[in-house]
Amino acid sequence: MKTAILSVGTEILMGQIVNTNAVYLSQELNALGFDVMYHHTVGDNTARLKETMDLLFHDCDLIITTGGLGPTQDDLTKETVCSYMEDELIFDEVQMKELEEAFKRYRSPMTENNIKQAYLPSRAVKFSNPHGTAPGFALENKGKYIICLPGPPREMKEMFNLHARPYLEEKADAKIVYKLIRTMGIGESQLETQLLDLIDGQTDPTLATYAKEGESYVRVASKRETKEEATAAVEDMIKKVRDRIGEFIYSEDNEDLWTVTGRLLLEKGLTLSAAESCTGGLFAKTMTDIPGISEVFDRSLVTYSNKAKMEELGVKAETLEKYGAVSEETAREMAEGLERVSGSDICISVTGVAGPGGGTDEKPVGLSYIGLRYKGETKCKEVRTRDVGRAFNRNRTMLNMINMIYREIK
Amino acid sequence: MKTAILSVGTEILMGQIVNTNAVYLSQELNALGFDVMYHHTVGDNTARLKETMDLLFHDCDLIITTGGLGPTQDDLTKETVCSYMEDELIFDEVQMKELEEAFKRYRSPMTENNIKQAYLPSRAVKFSNPHGTAPGFALENKGKYIICLPGPPREMKEMFNLHARPYLEEKADAKIVYKLIRTMGIGESQLETQLLDLIDGQTDPTLATYAKEGESYVRVASKRETKEEATAAVEDMIKKVRDRIGEFIYSEDNEDLWTVTGRLLLEKGLTLSAAESCTGGLFAKTMTDIPGISEVFDRSLVTYSNKAKMEELGVKAETLEKYGAVSEETAREMAEGLERVSGSDICISVTGVAGPGGGTDEKPVGLSYIGLRYKGETKCKEVRTRDVGRAFNRNRTMLNMINMIYREIK
Repeated sequence: MKTAILSVGTEILMGQIVNTNAVYLSQELNALGFDVMYHHTVGDNTARLKETMDLLFHDCDLIITTGGLGPTQDDLTKETVCSYMEDELIFDEVQMKELEEAFKRYRSPMTENNIKQAYLPSRAVKFSNPHGTAPGFALENKGKYIICLPGPPREMKEMFNLHARPYLEEKADAKIVYKLIRTMGIGESQLETQLLDLIDGQTDPTLATYAKEGESYVRVASKRETKEEATAAVEDMIKKVRDRIGEFIYSEDNEDLWTVTGRLLLEKGLTLSAAESCTGGLFAKTMTDIPGISEVFDRSLVTYSNKAKMEELGVKAETLEKYGAVSEETAREMAEGLERVSGSDICISVTGVAGPGGGTDEKPVGLSYIGLRYKGETKCKEVRTRDVGRAFNRNRTMLNMINMIYREIK
Repeated sequence: MKTAILSVGTEILMGQIVNTNAVYLSQELNALGFDVMYHHTVGDNTARLKETMDLLFHDCDLIITTGGLGPTQDDLTKETVCSYMEDELIFDEVQMKELEEAFKRYRSPMTENNIKQAYLPSRAVKFSNPHGTAPGFALENKGKYIICLPGPPREMKEMFNLHARPYLEEKADAKIVYKLIRTMGIGESQLETQLLDLIDGQTDPTLATYAKEGESYVRVASKRETKEEATAAVEDMIKKVRDRIGEFIYSEDNEDLWTVTGRLLLEKGLTLSAAESCTGGLFAKTMTDIPGISEVFDRSLVTYSNKAKMEELGVKAETLEKYGAVSEETAREMAEGLERVSGSDICISVTGVAGPGGGTDEKPVGLSYIGLRYKGETKCKEVRTRDVGRAFNRNRTMLNMINMIYREIK
């Protein structure tokens, strides 16, 4: 089904918020087998909203809107869509009860304008909102469909998954199943080469590779009459992919490398500490993004200055002088010093040139050394990133640290 | 001038990238006095691109496109726009030279399809691209304007600032000058109350307040015949704003709090160390996002476990037991212990409940304590954030840490 995503909100046109809803919905809709033809954003304006729906329905059979379902005067998506689809708003008792309960839960008084949110188009399939007061809905008219979802991403996602997804699965002509395989340590072009005959020779399941932030992905998708058939076809293809590039795969379920690594650490009960220089706390920040990681994550010593490296980790002044702060020798002493102070099972260290300044011919921006102390042994790795800015370099270096841990313990 | 932003690229419709270009251009265009009426995204498809331009020009006089200027077959923005605007592509010698030099610089061979990038519409105002090979351009036909910019954000922004901005300033009916004042420690509604008479009583300069990620902004804008007049009017208004809420302002130039604070530290030559628990390295990561900060930033000890707090910072076991890890007493001992080990001029500490788990009635998710050791004195602050998730809580806590430092040293 040809689909358009229509975001409603003047704040998007003012550049005050990033439209992440369109990204999320595009991913999910494509995965469900819907062809996303357009993204469109209009302000809070009835006339322009109607014009836009006219245009989009010229090509598409389904429009998904986000935003404009709130209680205030400039929230007019529901009213506009309802009249456009030749329906009328009616008072919904059940919705009113839900609203009253929500306000009780929030301990805030329900104002007059909130009652607006108890009205829904008479033919609408109602989508309740567990995280907010605005209900969403699906509405059909003469073979054209509109689904209205709220603007706040948290509410939108939850409502999509609870209500819109099952509704759309029903409407889809066929069942699509797809898996996103994530790899690390192999470039996209090399990946493609390894899988070329599978990519070229197949119409279903289809294989596609793409690169994103230092990783290469393989997307395996199948479109069949039943979900079971599609799942089996995908699993079958994944087996073939695994045979070719298994060693580079860390997730067959589109999980982040740190999520997978964190789970492994928790399962194995291995404690972790870090000593960071160029990443400046990014490694610790990323690992501690994982709720519950405190059971195994002990500490990170962000030793940015040479003084801190010596005082906190016992890196020798001679080492810093002879080999420099950015060197395998320093990374090694950082990891070994960290083990002495923390006693953690896994001690990882990093030192490098994040840029933009500080690079030399011998030690360019993007160069870093990682040290890994585990089971009485120290391994060191040199990493060189294609320098496209400080944030990129730091991020890439951090991913390499996590990958080194993952490889070691998996 | 009524304006539409048209993003070209199937990868956006697939949800593979976030359309940050539309955000950036919306901010800049609104600031220049252009009314952004629509965002629209289409795939790499000539027919749909033409249809979309038809629709957008129905309402608008200016379309700014991003993407589709590359060397491959599916890059067709330039060709489509050129024919739509009734012009023809001609070979540009100067552009060809620039291309050859760029490839020499990249040390990569120039392939046949790159020559495509040396062609430009005959009437185009050419915009050169310092960060890539695709030139952009502006093209006019019968009072309608199209500006084509490349897709990669870094190239797009640089080209916008170097070429599109001056081009657009010429076209703007009047000159707009605006400043974004950033404050911390005052809510948006309180801010609005303090400035209400200025907001309501003025048609030019205009004042608007808005809230974003824990900060409140004031936008002062003036639209006059000359830039000088507009600047004077804005400066005049800023003086009034400063009189009312000066104590909460940390930037009158839309700078981040950490940028302002980092510059102050460098100017004053004050060294900084941190001891982080709940923020898990986010404070260090943020401060070390600032290039050159290594001159003053010494270290951050991310003491996630109690063991680490005791070993690294000398926090007493009794303190942890009696008051808990999340307490003013622990924050104080962390900051004081940090001063002993680092000797930094400013030692800041934080301990809190980032969530989603770990909260109690007494110590709910979102509660944290910050300790600041400076000039032989320790100050502590309790922070409670409205709990809307781990990332939000950590970010808000981190901002409070930086704000505390900023207040202390400014």
